[in-house]
Amino acid sequence: MSQARQSAASTEAATESVLEDTRRANLARLFKPQSIAVVGASADSAKAGSQALKTLSRFPGKLVCVHPRETEIQGFTCYPSFADLPEPVDLAVLAIPAQHCVKAAAEAAERGVGGVFIVSGGFGETGAEGAKLQDALGEICARTGLRLLGPNTSGFVNPAAGCIASFVPGVDTIGTGHVSVVAQSGGVNLSLGYLLDRLGEGVSIAAGLGNAVDVGTRDMLDLLAEDENTRAIALHLEGVTDGRALFETLKRVTPRKPVAAVVAGRADIGEFAVSHTGNLMGSRERTVAALTQAGAVVVDTLDELAQAAAVFSRRRLQPKASNAMALITGQAGPGLLITDALKASGIALPELGPTTMEKIEALLPPMTFIKNPVDTGRPGPGFPEIVRAVAEDEAIDAVLVFGISEPSVLDPATALRPAEQATGKPIVFGTLGPAKDLEKAHDDLAVLGTPMAIGPDRLALAGVALDADARHQWRLSHAARTTLSPVREQLTGPFDESAAKQLMRSYGIAAPRSVLCKTREAALAAFGDLQKPLVVKIAAEDVPHKTEVGGVILNVRDEPSFSAALDRIAAIPTKTPNRVLIEEMAPEGVELIVGAVRDPSWGPCVVIGLGGVQAEAVSDSVVGLAPLSETDAAVMLEALRGKKLLDGFRGLPKCDRTAIASVAIAVGQLLLDHPEITEVEINPLRVNETSAVALDALVVFGEKS
Amino acid sequence: MSQARQSAASTEAATESVLEDTRRANLARLFKPQSIAVVGASADSAKAGSQALKTLSRFPGKLVCVHPRETEIQGFTCYPSFADLPEPVDLAVLAIPAQHCVKAAAEAAERGVGGVFIVSGGFGETGAEGAKLQDALGEICARTGLRLLGPNTSGFVNPAAGCIASFVPGVDTIGTGHVSVVAQSGGVNLSLGYLLDRLGEGVSIAAGLGNAVDVGTRDMLDLLAEDENTRAIALHLEGVTDGRALFETLKRVTPRKPVAAVVAGRADIGEFAVSHTGNLMGSRERTVAALTQAGAVVVDTLDELAQAAAVFSRRRLQPKASNAMALITGQAGPGLLITDALKASGIALPELGPTTMEKIEALLPPMTFIKNPVDTGRPGPGFPEIVRAVAEDEAIDAVLVFGISEPSVLDPATALRPAEQATGKPIVFGTLGPAKDLEKAHDDLAVLGTPMAIGPDRLALAGVALDADARHQWRLSHAARTTLSPVREQLTGPFDESAAKQLMRSYGIAAPRSVLCKTREAALAAFGDLQKPLVVKIAAEDVPHKTEVGGVILNVRDEPSFSAALDRIAAIPTKTPNRVLIEEMAPEGVELIVGAVRDPSWGPCVVIGLGGVQAEAVSDSVVGLAPLSETDAAVMLEALRGKKLLDGFRGLPKCDRTAIASVAIAVGQLLLDHPEITEVEINPLRVNETSAVALDALVVFGEKS
Repeated sequence: MSQARQSAASTEAATESVLEDTRRANLARLFKPQSIAVVGASADSAKAGSQALKTLSRFPGKLVCVHPRETEIQGFTCYPSFADLPEPVDLAVLAIPAQHCVKAAAEAAERGVGGVFIVSGGFGETGAEGAKLQDALGEICARTGLRLLGPNTSGFVNPAAGCIASFVPGVDTIGTGHVSVVAQSGGVNLSLGYLLDRLGEGVSIAAGLGNAVDVGTRDMLDLLAEDENTRAIALHLEGVTDGRALFETLKRVTPRKPVAAVVAGRADIGEFAVSHTGNLMGSRERTVAALTQAGAVVVDTLDELAQAAAVFSRRRLQPKASNAMALITGQAGPGLLITDALKASGIALPELGPTTMEKIEALLPPMTFIKNPVDTGRPGPGFPEIVRAVAEDEAIDAVLVFGISEPSVLDPATALRPAEQATGKPIVFGTLGPAKDLEKAHDDLAVLGTPMAIGPDRLALAGVALDADARHQWRLSHAARTTLSPVREQLTGPFDESAAKQLMRSYGIAAPRSVLCKTREAALAAFGDLQKPLVVKIAAEDVPHKTEVGGVILNVRDEPSFSAALDRIAAIPTKTPNRVLIEEMAPEGVELIVGAVRDPSWGPCVVIGLGGVQAEAVSDSVVGLAPLSETDAAVMLEALRGKKLLDGFRGLPKCDRTAIASVAIAVGQLLLDHPEITEVEINPLRVNETSAVALDALVVFGEKS
Repeated sequence: MSQARQSAASTEAATESVLEDTRRANLARLFKPQSIAVVGASADSAKAGSQALKTLSRFPGKLVCVHPRETEIQGFTCYPSFADLPEPVDLAVLAIPAQHCVKAAAEAAERGVGGVFIVSGGFGETGAEGAKLQDALGEICARTGLRLLGPNTSGFVNPAAGCIASFVPGVDTIGTGHVSVVAQSGGVNLSLGYLLDRLGEGVSIAAGLGNAVDVGTRDMLDLLAEDENTRAIALHLEGVTDGRALFETLKRVTPRKPVAAVVAGRADIGEFAVSHTGNLMGSRERTVAALTQAGAVVVDTLDELAQAAAVFSRRRLQPKASNAMALITGQAGPGLLITDALKASGIALPELGPTTMEKIEALLPPMTFIKNPVDTGRPGPGFPEIVRAVAEDEAIDAVLVFGISEPSVLDPATALRPAEQATGKPIVFGTLGPAKDLEKAHDDLAVLGTPMAIGPDRLALAGVALDADARHQWRLSHAARTTLSPVREQLTGPFDESAAKQLMRSYGIAAPRSVLCKTREAALAAFGDLQKPLVVKIAAEDVPHKTEVGGVILNVRDEPSFSAALDRIAAIPTKTPNRVLIEEMAPEGVELIVGAVRDPSWGPCVVIGLGGVQAEAVSDSVVGLAPLSETDAAVMLEALRGKKLLDGFRGLPKCDRTAIASVAIAVGQLLLDHPEITEVEINPLRVNETSAVALDALVVFGEKS
């Protein structure tokens, strides 16, 4: 490279790095502004711009308008254009029709505005015309470093900064808190904000991304990881186009801030979703797998999302493979339902140690159940000591306490404080009662930083969420190491079964001993070397479905039947050379399907499923993103609905889970190493006590390979 | 029968009928009292009795105390004993230790008190001593007609009657409403009361049954079916000992009043549950199946239970096999999540008719999605007309509307009233926003009787619950008719396979043609008559597991192999006569397991499961109570997770569902006809396009047969 060229390249790199810094700084200016300009406010108070201005009226920083003719609106100074602003604002709210937004954004960038928020729809979600406008906005951002929230969103709120950037009245009632919201949909963002407020929590920053031309989920996660007011993140996703990058971002963020997430797309809602976000929905199963693997806790509903995030903003468990909890109840019936929900989620409620039991027995009347859950009957004066004794039990990672409000016998803060102070373990309080009692309990516990949940179901959810977060973080701390790749050169397909198995073998995956024979003579020679019984299979590139043409003959034990098998295969008409693959038969075992596919958004994904039509009919399979760690693979196997098939079920052999895990890791690595391969499938993988053998293998090359 | 005997019997019947009338009248007196006496109140205000008296202080009827020494407590007159009461009270609250309750109950019965509520624990749940006391109470009730709520419960509330019979302070804040609560646990009853109150609904009667010595779930259901303030019932069950009777009661009640239910026992919580209720938990799966079949809507959590019952207290759908709903949203993101939840529950959101579409298109800006869901973007002035147009669509049974609060553009009552008035169809409103907006919306919609739900998840739940109720009621209206029983005489076991199949045949269940042969000569003679290939099986009463001893030889086609098969079976050592069953082989097909078991609580239950170890490993089976209707059986098949195996999956034949249903109905009828049989299992039932054939059958007789 010439010196001149080198210098040009390094100038370019420096420029890019400066731009990156600008973008990062402008993102923070957008969401934590000290000055704001509203474009599109007018004398007409029903207009979104006027509404936005009104909602912002309590903003403590500098608030002005940009208007071509007015000099003042709602008491705020107007400037005719961005160029006329006495100083560049951090945030400009564009409440003007789509077709005027590009010009406004360009002018804002020119004046040094940090970011703009575009209220209007009429962009990529409406068709080609809108997409052009959207592309133009994207170009301005990429070139100048201006940040853009939206278009097509209801905006964001940052109550602590007094910044309510939204045209929806009432949003300014959402309180200040420590949960931040990142939602692809503006409506979901508002929903979560209100739900959190109803829990008495409020939000730190809550943003709806809309069409996400510039500011996307990853930008928000990186911003919030650094935001000191944010202690937990509630994430809402619809379609994800940059899955792999999001996966990497989340892996960085979740160890610092707990993330709870909801993913749309449980049912087939493709058409509506396309129209809404302008994106195709990805596979929800893969999205959930990716988020979980990156350490987020995926829940099913917005109610659960708000509740889980609220709990996370107060407490988090240490990373651990599995957590043991204790439940202390004032009433047995709700206690039974909580126990039920915890156990159904696989949380252990172990018996308490003898020392703990002794302490509790001394404090409780004889008729109560004191193993775990500890049912106190009606709470008495010994309640705080019971909670403390249970929390001090070495086997217990967290304590859940449920009691219906009876202020005369149970004051929540008094009951929980000693246990928290003595152990530092998370104690979560669940309760129900008259509204004023709940408010008092909430306020008292907020001071202690103790999570509280209304009702038995939500207390159980708190336990389940804390456990999941700790398990996911433990898994993340055992993430995959970089593996040495056995085959680095680019491969050229198509591959027949023999070539496919050879590739598997090079990745350490066992396949039966076999010989590929081009002639009858070679076949007869190979026969003697192999251990009987054998399988004789057709090997012709134009015959992918061997069984259907009678090209697989099992249980061949002697020369006459071997000879007959060769005759049958020779008689099958083929276009490519008709060869035979002679293979030793594998020992009996449990059959699985292990494969890897290249997802357009998430990249290489590994799938493990149980074999057989019944398992297929119930869709019993699990997904993980490559590279998989041994822990990832073990967690995946544990998530199979029919996992008991692996453990010596009904006379089947107990399966070597480590061997299955190695195969799963290897097929993932194979896809990472070979971008020219789009799919690998081992079906079946036959597994017993000591081995996992690929009985058949398929390698699919991409069209461009 | 002699005349004297006849007369004595009829006198006895008349006495019983009078007692039954008394019991019914006393139950109503207990829960809707006009006079109450409290036993156990004292100068000590911390005592449960004093607390109960305080909680009752706003009772508008006559309120007195029974106390051996005091003349007045908290301003209420005291009488030394029940005998001294100037008139018998409707309800006596016994807040005294367990050991004094029997005497008090006897005295109350003697004085003509309607019912007593016993606060204390210390009865059946604590051991033999307590059980004795409990039995004595039961005896008094059975003999005198006195009704007893409890013991070991926190009581009941009837806010409309001003009757707060509970020692828990704060319960008097629960408002008056139209949902009644029946909970086995006092703590769950209070929880549900508070949860309903938080929904702005309140309760009609809310009772916790505790040990349920006398007043049980069935009594409550019958009472509430007649209670004019009760429009929906929220039911909580732990263990059910009288399942079959509860099933019959629910079948009567649910067509009159919608019932939502929660059943404890998702996980294995046996030990805790026993200690709590003194009952063994039954199989939760059977309980859920029974409740559903009787028309109740079973949900998973108390939050869902309160919400579903609240919706039911306002609206109910007509009984229908499946319901089509429309969703209208003000914001697309929440709309996507609602659509998701509805579709995941199998609710159809069909495209709207052309007339409807035309009307809506005229009212909406072009960029919105107007199929179904109808996404309005930000609600505009045409919103009420859109809701009406959608509701008027013939294909639509109910309309769900979601909009985040924006009072300036969307007033809920204005938006929904025209649609409701024009169509009478249920319209449910879901929303989120500042608390004061939600309160106003709630109050406005309460006047219209329109259900409202806070947030997208709860709106979806409302739709799912309404749909389930309508489907269950439709199923109930197609209940099983009495079947003529082919075999009425009592049978004597044990039955071998041949006898079992003969019994199946007599119930119309197909089995392969077969001959049971006691001698080799008979076998050889039978060989010629049967269609090949054949199965040759050992038939000896002491060999239940035929395959394990090599006693099943398949695919026998010619005389030499038949002869060899007979030799192999003859060589198997047996204690009972060694015979052979020669059977034609059934055509290929899908294998199911169909059986019936006699549940100690629910009586004869039918189980349908997919065959094979994989299906077994994922526990893919469904349960229904005999007698099954054809509709019941069809609904059960539809509930199999791997149901696609029945529909021509992966080259398997499409299964004759009617044939499977007939088998399921028949095995249920068999158990109803034959109390001496405890279990029947057909495994496998082999099914193809035209037939369902029992390849093996097992009949188990009870120990007393």
